[in-house]
Amino acid sequence: MDKKGRERVNNPIKVAVAGPRGRMGREAVALVHHAENFQLVAVIDRIHDGKDLAEVDGFNGIHAPVYTDIERCFQETKPDVLVDLTTPETGKRHTEIALRYGVRPVVGTTGFSQEEIEQLTKLAEEKEMGAIIAPNFAVGAILMMKFAQMAAKYFTDVEIIELHHDQKLDAPSGTAVKTAQLISAVRPTKKQGHPDEKETLKGARGASYDGIPIHSVRLPGLIAHQEVIFGGNGQSLTIRHDSFHRGSFMSGVKLSIETVMKLQTLVYGLEHIIE
Amino acid sequence: MDKKGRERVNNPIKVAVAGPRGRMGREAVALVHHAENFQLVAVIDRIHDGKDLAEVDGFNGIHAPVYTDIERCFQETKPDVLVDLTTPETGKRHTEIALRYGVRPVVGTTGFSQEEIEQLTKLAEEKEMGAIIAPNFAVGAILMMKFAQMAAKYFTDVEIIELHHDQKLDAPSGTAVKTAQLISAVRPTKKQGHPDEKETLKGARGASYDGIPIHSVRLPGLIAHQEVIFGGNGQSLTIRHDSFHRGSFMSGVKLSIETVMKLQTLVYGLEHIIE
Amino acid sequence: MDKKGRERVNNPIKVAVAGPRGRMGREAVALVHHAENFQLVAVIDRIHDGKDLAEVDGFNGIHAPVYTDIERCFQETKPDVLVDLTTPETGKRHTEIALRYGVRPVVGTTGFSQEEIEQLTKLAEEKEMGAIIAPNFAVGAILMMKFAQMAAKYFTDVEIIELHHDQKLDAPSGTAVKTAQLISAVRPTKKQGHPDEKETLKGARGASYDGIPIHSVRLPGLIAHQEVIFGGNGQSLTIRHDSFHRGSFMSGVKLSIETVMKLQTLVYGLEHIIE
Amino acid sequence: MDKKGRERVNNPIKVAVAGPRGRMGREAVALVHHAENFQLVAVIDRIHDGKDLAEVDGFNGIHAPVYTDIERCFQETKPDVLVDLTTPETGKRHTEIALRYGVRPVVGTTGFSQEEIEQLTKLAEEKEMGAIIAPNFAVGAILMMKFAQMAAKYFTDVEIIELHHDQKLDAPSGTAVKTAQLISAVRPTKKQGHPDEKETLKGARGASYDGIPIHSVRLPGLIAHQEVIFGGNGQSLTIRHDSFHRGSFMSGVKLSIETVMKLQTLVYGLEHIIE
Repeated sequence: MDKKGRERVNNPIKVAVAGPRGRMGREAVALVHHAENFQLVAVIDRIHDGKDLAEVDGFNGIHAPVYTDIERCFQETKPDVLVDLTTPETGKRHTEIALRYGVRPVVGTTGFSQEEIEQLTKLAEEKEMGAIIAPNFAVGAILMMKFAQMAAKYFTDVEIIELHHDQKLDAPSGTAVKTAQLISAVRPTKKQGHPDEKETLKGARGASYDGIPIHSVRLPGLIAHQEVIFGGNGQSLTIRHDSFHRGSFMSGVKLSIETVMKLQTLVYGLEHIIE
Repeated sequence: MDKKGRERVNNPIKVAVAGPRGRMGREAVALVHHAENFQLVAVIDRIHDGKDLAEVDGFNGIHAPVYTDIERCFQETKPDVLVDLTTPETGKRHTEIALRYGVRPVVGTTGFSQEEIEQLTKLAEEKEMGAIIAPNFAVGAILMMKFAQMAAKYFTDVEIIELHHDQKLDAPSGTAVKTAQLISAVRPTKKQGHPDEKETLKGARGASYDGIPIHSVRLPGLIAHQEVIFGGNGQSLTIRHDSFHRGSFMSGVKLSIETVMKLQTLVYGLEHIIE
Repeated sequence: MDKKGRERVNNPIKVAVAGPRGRMGREAVALVHHAENFQLVAVIDRIHDGKDLAEVDGFNGIHAPVYTDIERCFQETKPDVLVDLTTPETGKRHTEIALRYGVRPVVGTTGFSQEEIEQLTKLAEEKEMGAIIAPNFAVGAILMMKFAQMAAKYFTDVEIIELHHDQKLDAPSGTAVKTAQLISAVRPTKKQGHPDEKETLKGARGASYDGIPIHSVRLPGLIAHQEVIFGGNGQSLTIRHDSFHRGSFMSGVKLSIETVMKLQTLVYGLEHIIE
Repeated sequence: MDKKGRERVNNPIKVAVAGPRGRMGREAVALVHHAENFQLVAVIDRIHDGKDLAEVDGFNGIHAPVYTDIERCFQETKPDVLVDLTTPETGKRHTEIALRYGVRPVVGTTGFSQEEIEQLTKLAEEKEMGAIIAPNFAVGAILMMKFAQMAAKYFTDVEIIELHHDQKLDAPSGTAVKTAQLISAVRPTKKQGHPDEKETLKGARGASYDGIPIHSVRLPGLIAHQEVIFGGNGQSLTIRHDSFHRGSFMSGVKLSIETVMKLQTLVYGLEHIIE
């Protein structure tokens, strides 16, 4: 029985979380704390060095030492995995230190250059250790993109509708563009719709990415949703992802912690560990 | 027992159908033939004068006299209702003759001017007879528009997505524009979305009708579909109509035949007989 | 300029909120605080008597006096409207006191008997004051039910699918049953589906309320959603409400505060102030 | 230029269609006739032997010789592929004859025993020829099932909603059950929903296949639709297939004709040629 009052699995995966006070970081701390097969051994934070995490606002009852110095953290708590949800600059530094200390990094920050990824991959392979860098941890969104790419081989026509709250500034969303790129990669560029179609109101047919129409809906109350609709002879196939809150990312963090233990190289993008 | 081998209601409504060989006309003939409370007393057709309809290709087993001369038809068969699914020009002529002969017209053609409608209304009221002219007989589509207008009083933000087969030339659809007009009539013009939103791909945010975004999807396989999505604090309300084949219009023809018997004026637009 | 740094409308509606620390109460305080045409003049709470609300945990920056004695609150702050989000027993007592003090009650608690509503209605009418009691404040859900009842006059066949998170114990949901009741009230009882249909797996055709099938989906991640699907000749009409968080109730609270100022009687159920 | 007045590709695939007057057969004839890379060289029919297909009712303008004797057909027209849409008994006989004559069979009939499939596979491999037998040719439905199985590895909770016209007798549909089987094959049996959930109206939670709830909607106007909804932490993933008319099967027939040319064995089930 552990301090949470329930049976622990033998040899849980020992996890340190960097960036615990951010939005994603808080969710990750809760995830690691509650998962039976994980053990939260430390957090890494710019402030609060030396405290027990339970003393920090919002972490009531979650005990783990806080370190500001990541190397001391690794030396003293010997985690199996580092979950890093800090900033691009800090994330890069942490990833390299983790690999040198034999701690497998699971990193949610963006901004790695192609060259940096290659260097880190080389380091991981030399050490025969796993590492995962994932710009998007939402397993459902990644499956949607993967399925869309697969379906595009069998349906020549597709449109994307993405729907978000009206505080979002950019249209279309990054996920919609990424989905169109993945579809475009497996099919010839094609002008869809009737060759003579015309817009009697400008913009009705949406944006076009390599001939794939993208429609962006912005309404108060909505959160983050996307539909990919394929049409063919007498049928349609629709793949829809609804993200209701940022907890949706935690499924990917959990999967990554479990998977990184079995890898001997660096994987960039969750789509490569989802089959 | 009638010739269809089943009980007839007492005093069925006697109906003549003009334009029986068109797409809509064929459906209307079948509807009147099969409905218990209707009786098909005649059809009016440019050709086949004097034949039994059952001899005409595609009407096997449906017996009714064919007339080319509408006045002789009315004199000899004395219908209660004329269902007219011909052309704009013929439809106008038939409507006036019907009213003069005491036959209530249910007319599915478009192209009546405001002045013509006023004259026909005056004629109907003098005779204390009902008449219905309906550019759109799909009850589901009319309910969708009606509900959208009602909801617009309680939700300030709305977008319209209409989806059709890719042989459709115009975007947005007439129904989408009509829906936006009805919404616009009950709310102040409003720029929706974030004031600083920007399209990184042109057209992503769709067409705008008085500030209401309209998105037109065109895919093979689809038929005729529309979603009206309202968004508000923590919620969304969606009204969707799917039209799978032209039979969807027959619900409105049936309703009109029943309703026209009780009216003493002319009604333009099915929305005015739907409560 | 008020203390929120923006222009106030002339003569905002003065509102007191009872039950400010409950889930709904917190949302209501935020609503009244932020709405331009409302002014938060007091809160009524069992504890914290005499404090400024801003001192209470979670209300940082929202200034209003806290009263435990509702009569003293009404005497000193003279609100136009009382928003009551307490418990059934307290809610009843508050409603009566409010009416006696000339404060229009907007009450979100349930448990009023038919007799109590009649007495309170009589009191409101004597005083020529408005009062609103609403078991459900989600405007979108109420519109969905209203539209479903209207559509049932034109479509004889309908099924209800309600989808909730998997922590919900009862199936079907109260809203689904209420929707079926409203539909049932305007149509003859009818066995839907094919007369000879059979379930090869028991339960496939769902629950039945007066012949209307209801299907309950329970999945982690979902919140509270319902679809009412009408089917007819060649078409379907779908009305869907998605409730993403309890903020969805606030649209109805806002509407009620505005409407109660114009009433001279008691209204039970938001459906009666929505046209 | 061929007789359809457009450019033919070099070396189109020569196709014979057996069962041309059935519902599926008519669609297949039209498909082969219109596809640029196919050439309709013959049809095999119980009647009309020796006629030109264009003389047969409903095939106006589509020229191809009609044979009742399949062996004479193969000898004289030397097709590359036989598309067989006859009956189970005839389909079996045709498949074997085709393989013996070096004509690749694409067969849409059911009823092959495991033993028969093994024998035919052996024959195909001896001849180093392709053969495809497919109980379901709707590519969209097959992709839906495939994606559902893939997603089930990452989401532990799923429900299936299938919606059909109200003339369908059985509930749930065969496709829904097959989908549940495929999901069940990759996950441990699990009771979904809250452990203490209860139905206040019996059947609300649907049928259960290995713990997966299935809900069957039957409404007039609908055709054939299915949604597979996965729920997880803060998100849902929905895969939906809409079949609007039997043309939806033709995408799979087309794919099969193209694929069978490259195979050197027999494939049973379209899911094995879709990646």
